[in-house]
Amino acid sequence: MTRLFNDPDDFAEESAAGFAAASARWVRPVTGGVVRSTRGAEPTVSVVIGGGSGHYPAFAGLVGPGLAHGAAMGNLFASPSAHQVHSVAVAANEGRGVLLSYGNYAGDVLHFTQAQERMREAGIDCRTVLVTDDISSAPKAEIEKRRGIAGDLVVFKIAGAAAEAGLDLDDVERLALLANARTRTLGVAFGGCTLPGADEPLFTVPEGRMAVGLGIHGEPGIDEVDVPTAAGLAELFVSSLLAEIPDGVDADGARVVPILNGLGSVKYEELYVVYAEIDRLLAEAGIVVVSPEVGEFCTSFDMAGVSLTLLWLDDEIEPLWHAPCDTPAFRRGAVEGRIAVDDVEVVEEEVVIGPASDASREAATTIDRAMTAIAAMLDAQADELGRIDRIAGDGDHGIGMQRGSKAAAAAASSSAAAGAGARTTLQQAGDAWADKGGGTSGAIWGEMLVALGATLGDDAEVDAARIAAGVTAMKDAVMSFGKAKVGDKTMIDAIVPFADRLAELVAAGTELVPAWSDAADTADRAAKSTADLTAKLGRARSHGDKSLGTPDPGAVSFALIAHTVLDILEGNE
Amino acid sequence: MTRLFNDPDDFAEESAAGFAAASARWVRPVTGGVVRSTRGAEPTVSVVIGGGSGHYPAFAGLVGPGLAHGAAMGNLFASPSAHQVHSVAVAANEGRGVLLSYGNYAGDVLHFTQAQERMREAGIDCRTVLVTDDISSAPKAEIEKRRGIAGDLVVFKIAGAAAEAGLDLDDVERLALLANARTRTLGVAFGGCTLPGADEPLFTVPEGRMAVGLGIHGEPGIDEVDVPTAAGLAELFVSSLLAEIPDGVDADGARVVPILNGLGSVKYEELYVVYAEIDRLLAEAGIVVVSPEVGEFCTSFDMAGVSLTLLWLDDEIEPLWHAPCDTPAFRRGAVEGRIAVDDVEVVEEEVVIGPASDASREAATTIDRAMTAIAAMLDAQADELGRIDRIAGDGDHGIGMQRGSKAAAAAASSSAAAGAGARTTLQQAGDAWADKGGGTSGAIWGEMLVALGATLGDDAEVDAARIAAGVTAMKDAVMSFGKAKVGDKTMIDAIVPFADRLAELVAAGTELVPAWSDAADTADRAAKSTADLTAKLGRARSHGDKSLGTPDPGAVSFALIAHTVLDILEGNE
Repeated sequence: MTRLFNDPDDFAEESAAGFAAASARWVRPVTGGVVRSTRGAEPTVSVVIGGGSGHYPAFAGLVGPGLAHGAAMGNLFASPSAHQVHSVAVAANEGRGVLLSYGNYAGDVLHFTQAQERMREAGIDCRTVLVTDDISSAPKAEIEKRRGIAGDLVVFKIAGAAAEAGLDLDDVERLALLANARTRTLGVAFGGCTLPGADEPLFTVPEGRMAVGLGIHGEPGIDEVDVPTAAGLAELFVSSLLAEIPDGVDADGARVVPILNGLGSVKYEELYVVYAEIDRLLAEAGIVVVSPEVGEFCTSFDMAGVSLTLLWLDDEIEPLWHAPCDTPAFRRGAVEGRIAVDDVEVVEEEVVIGPASDASREAATTIDRAMTAIAAMLDAQADELGRIDRIAGDGDHGIGMQRGSKAAAAAASSSAAAGAGARTTLQQAGDAWADKGGGTSGAIWGEMLVALGATLGDDAEVDAARIAAGVTAMKDAVMSFGKAKVGDKTMIDAIVPFADRLAELVAAGTELVPAWSDAADTADRAAKSTADLTAKLGRARSHGDKSLGTPDPGAVSFALIAHTVLDILEGNE
Repeated sequence: MTRLFNDPDDFAEESAAGFAAASARWVRPVTGGVVRSTRGAEPTVSVVIGGGSGHYPAFAGLVGPGLAHGAAMGNLFASPSAHQVHSVAVAANEGRGVLLSYGNYAGDVLHFTQAQERMREAGIDCRTVLVTDDISSAPKAEIEKRRGIAGDLVVFKIAGAAAEAGLDLDDVERLALLANARTRTLGVAFGGCTLPGADEPLFTVPEGRMAVGLGIHGEPGIDEVDVPTAAGLAELFVSSLLAEIPDGVDADGARVVPILNGLGSVKYEELYVVYAEIDRLLAEAGIVVVSPEVGEFCTSFDMAGVSLTLLWLDDEIEPLWHAPCDTPAFRRGAVEGRIAVDDVEVVEEEVVIGPASDASREAATTIDRAMTAIAAMLDAQADELGRIDRIAGDGDHGIGMQRGSKAAAAAASSSAAAGAGARTTLQQAGDAWADKGGGTSGAIWGEMLVALGATLGDDAEVDAARIAAGVTAMKDAVMSFGKAKVGDKTMIDAIVPFADRLAELVAAGTELVPAWSDAADTADRAAKSTADLTAKLGRARSHGDKSLGTPDPGAVSFALIAHTVLDILEGNE
């Protein structure tokens, strides 16, 4: 369990701050994560990694000469936002292009891809190599769907070493892809980890049993067996991974790096007992074991689990694996000729306030007032939203919306005060909401505000038709974000009828305020139906009936926000 | 808990084997532990560390260029035997003297001191620096009684760096003492670790409570409080350690290395949350924080605990702390110019069979027969001895005696077959028993056989008077080993009347066999009284009455051994 924290909601942020303070020899903090605090004599391609927090030393512990240039640090087990990834990538960029590399998870893919697009829009060559080493997460025929676990280290190390060697982005990308293609991992777990402030672990495995193929966030395994002996586990690991030899590799005489990774509370001594047998089995299979690694390289908080990774070396990869590197958590050989970077202050991304029309600036002040009102309303409603969420979910919706909207309101105010137009103001507010709100609701509201801003622009007239189009863009952003449909009892149930009704009335010539009011009523109905269902579910659950599905407090908060905005629009008249 | 093992009794040995296999870049296995697998261009003073297993990376994980030259690896939480320490020290010695350094625990002091004496007898300059960093284990006035915990790393690192710099043994010893004098640690724990095969943790702390000042083997703390916030823990650590500033140090402007150490299952992320506040508090106190370390440096299996160490630098120590080193678990900067040592086979200490008289060789064959019979008897009685031990203790007496006597019998046989005298044969048997038997009974029986051998010699006539004197020496060895007295219901209760009765009868002119037989009966009575008490205790315990104290199955096994030897002596007539 997690015992040492202050406010559980500040855990990831405080942990990141402590990491940066303890690791100033290697890293400096920037918005969204860390980048190296030293540089080499010549600029290189930059390798930017990242993911949720809770997997230390992945990801920030792997930043330093010879390995990664920067790491985007999300909240606990949550992807960093696109804004965070973008901020770290910009700070890490040395002018020779950026390789993004991270484990293949939907949330990470979404946000890193958005960041990549922003980099490309700014003319920076940016590529992506996903890590897909976990053999249990998809069959070999769908290898590209596999998730990334401890093999992260291999891909990052090879990419980092290739960059350090001065190779260009084409070669760094090619070698990272090659490293991923030659890396396979299988993991097992005996019990799940517990998040700060939570009473129960994320998942449990029955006493005396072992989940085979478990991911690093408690994703389901492929099998459950009795806990084997150490030798039995070694046999399971080796036989499973030898049944998955990468294409074109001959196992007999192959040179292989084994990486035995503890996921949290498994002891080093246990890892070594298992390793003794792995070493023997690999030798027995005719494999040449090269520089084994036994330790903690990609954890899952204090999860009781172990994984074995095999890296099948070739002539290109082997020298890169052995190349020197120096990071807080992974070091090899001698790294020389580093120059300290003097600036160790937090690098905040500079906000560029572009030109805007007077009308758009006027709209921005309305947006500022609306965001401020929304933040005040969500602050008052946070406990109630949390209560609804606790019935069906993890109870963090209230606090997430509270923190996200507060940050968004602050960003909107400073942006509007600086003379920004509607698009820029909503972009800043959306980024702030995603950064600080965390979780799915933070990411969704961030995207919604950015989508609305893109429609409103910085110089267009903000009339009813454009607002209705913007709300439709918000709806589309939500729809493309998740996979939920109307009727799944999520926020979708509220925003879809709202957006459709607003568009319909505005197209028919209704003025903005009455149209918005009418649309808000449809959102209310959806929210009420969700809230009723939630209440009913609360009762049904206590009788063990889960057939009703899981409603979402997001529908409730959406309806509340729609009414708060209505108040502002009415006041504007 | 410990989930991954094969035979729990082989755990430490298998873990050591796995460690050596995974770490061949740094270490090679020798009898009793590991030494470096590389050497520098010039010989240096050798730093030999060690202690029980279960504290990884302490101790074997700290062997490599710039740090330790070798580590003696005891069984789980048990000191290595004198023979193991001696073997590692001999293998590590480069001809410029040996510094032994380890945490200040009675068992380690006993065995390392014996090893030191053996080194000195062989003309090797050998010194000792004890680590005594734990401020909770004794008041400042008795600072030399304090135990060593995470401060081990500091003292080993400074000594290793001083040796690497080419300094002589006087200076290496002086700097290690200085490092220890400038190092202070305080630890806390939330729960104890569980040994392989055990059902219960070594100790427990009530839910929501925290033991303050706990050692790394579950030694009692000095206080128990509610689990504080992370900031509260940082405040406790910093205020306690700032109340213990080493003599002659001015805190204001002092340069200090903080080492925040996780003892097992505390997460890295939790450590960083605590570290953020430690960093702030140290700065607030006017201290200059230098190169902080946050991680796992001295664990206690999977104990949930944390310690903070402060190293108060001075002009001599600071460059040594920063000096390069390269070990499996702790690396700094660039270590260059290392030459691989070709010989990576297990180095068995060569057994030197000195000259012996015919009479002593004849006695050695009797000793061989007796050891073989004892091993067979203890093999048959192992379950019963385990059963008795489980009533009052941890149940490992049977298996420990079984394994120790088996190894001792094998050593005695090969020694006698090689023509050794009584002293040499008993020395070999005793070392083997201590190495393989483990625990207190292994150490005690090892010492007893060595003491008997020292009295019998390699060239003396082995008559009744000498045997009686030898048994008295065995008794003295037991008495000096522990602190138990007659009546404490331990092995002492059997060996004291046995030795006294044997000496009395032999002095009065009784022949050896009848005297031994009579003495064995006194041991029987003590054992029977112990066994009766044990049985009674078994019943009493189930009614919650613990007032009867803890009897020792050692008295029973001693009586059994006395009778087994009697059979051999009778057969000899």
